[in-house]
Amino acid sequence: MTTEFSDLPPFEPGTVWLVGAGPGDPGLLTLLALHALRTADVIVYDALVDPRIMALAGAGARRIHAGKRGGRPSPSQADISRTLVEEARKSLRVLRLKGGDPFVFGRGGEEALALAKAGIPFRLVPGITAGIGGLAYAGIPATHRDVNSAVAFVTGHAAGGDVPGDVDWEALGRGAPVLVIYMALRHLGTIASRLMDAGRSGDEPVAVVSRATTPAQTVLETTLARAAQDAEASGIKPPAIVVVGRAVSMRAGLDWLGARAGRALDPDPLRQPPRQGSKPR
Amino acid sequence: MTTEFSDLPPFEPGTVWLVGAGPGDPGLLTLLALHALRTADVIVYDALVDPRIMALAGAGARRIHAGKRGGRPSPSQADISRTLVEEARKSLRVLRLKGGDPFVFGRGGEEALALAKAGIPFRLVPGITAGIGGLAYAGIPATHRDVNSAVAFVTGHAAGGDVPGDVDWEALGRGAPVLVIYMALRHLGTIASRLMDAGRSGDEPVAVVSRATTPAQTVLETTLARAAQDAEASGIKPPAIVVVGRAVSMRAGLDWLGARAGRALDPDPLRQPPRQGSKPR
Repeated sequence: MTTEFSDLPPFEPGTVWLVGAGPGDPGLLTLLALHALRTADVIVYDALVDPRIMALAGAGARRIHAGKRGGRPSPSQADISRTLVEEARKSLRVLRLKGGDPFVFGRGGEEALALAKAGIPFRLVPGITAGIGGLAYAGIPATHRDVNSAVAFVTGHAAGGDVPGDVDWEALGRGAPVLVIYMALRHLGTIASRLMDAGRSGDEPVAVVSRATTPAQTVLETTLARAAQDAEASGIKPPAIVVVGRAVSMRAGLDWLGARAGRALDPDPLRQPPRQGSKPR
Repeated sequence: MTTEFSDLPPFEPGTVWLVGAGPGDPGLLTLLALHALRTADVIVYDALVDPRIMALAGAGARRIHAGKRGGRPSPSQADISRTLVEEARKSLRVLRLKGGDPFVFGRGGEEALALAKAGIPFRLVPGITAGIGGLAYAGIPATHRDVNSAVAFVTGHAAGGDVPGDVDWEALGRGAPVLVIYMALRHLGTIASRLMDAGRSGDEPVAVVSRATTPAQTVLETTLARAAQDAEASGIKPPAIVVVGRAVSMRAGLDWLGARAGRALDPDPLRQPPRQGSKPR
């Protein structure tokens, strides 16, 4: 594709762009994100940013890895914010590139406040979040008219590593027919128990979508009661999104990647009982 | 910007791409969406797709408007699905372009199932949804570590025009510290009452973000108790997203568009009491 597109805002020296890179597929980058990659002087990027996306960066850009790598400790949030401020003060164009969307469990707000405090001008560029766009690549719609008028996004992993203590799983389980849980693999058994305690059926369909939109995408379909043991047995890996609810059944009709691989689609998927305990594919 | 980007999948004749155009800013288009716009033979588009985005379409593309326009009745969902099938059967590249994300209150699933039923191959291309990306342009993060580990997206307007009957506002109000409500203007008073009945404080900050990410973006900051009357008095127009919760207070620190216009940012916005009843700006 060759694109002439002149209406994008200039990436001014001495500013920071906080940009979401989307879930992985470079085709899901926004035009603003590509523009920033091409013109940045410095790119501070996370472990979750796909290598195919980093390959689109300008040749002259300096790259600073801000995620865990190898056995080395990852920089703290304060370290990252300090780096952004320091690089911007050198009158450089600083791209802070994060996987998914910076404001959906991405700590983009904290970094932006640090920039505000330091008086560094910034721009917020949203990205496709895995809980919506990643699910679409698995054939699971976040909302569907016959399924849900509400969907909740929740993190399964607090900053300290535990299940977040401020989530009212009982109310959320009752209020949200579809739940999309980020970073849920580690505490999947605990979370599933709390949702069943809230009245959700153990037979309810669940999908675990790993490495969504990348060539390594894997989808495990299971049920709420079996989710933790099936995930463990399958060896499915993070990063993964867990979806709970009838939206998962829609996959039988909407798995367009599977259809391209020759699997038939069912145009009336909600008629079907949930598929149970199938292997990742 | 000139882009050479050769790794995008081919748009095969006889297929339909169901694509989200994002909230309005053409810079928030994905590379896949731009690729589809440039190569489609037919584009079936909604009223919510920004004219600046339609201007990026290839000169040879036939355009079919699928939304309400003037006094004419809008085509039914069945009409739209039939058009997609008929055009694809002519061995054309059919782009179905929807505002925001097709699977967040966008009825993308219904259209895809119609394609599955007709045996038409399709691809699902997510877009930036207004409830996340539109909010970021108003300086409101969907999640922030000190505010919420969960966020709920809910529609304020069912297919028949009423407040959706299948939403448990009481449970949702208790379970989701931040609520993002799509198409909420019409029933804002009813929805606010239900949330206050569920125990949400009338003093809780609320923002109404109209025409997010476009040059006509307007943000009304108010409170839950005053939201309906303030929205009415301000004359704020749909399409609009309503946000309820402390995330709205973050705007004092994150309103980067306001900062570019000269307003000071507060790097510690959660210390502040919510701003009440301010005018749209």
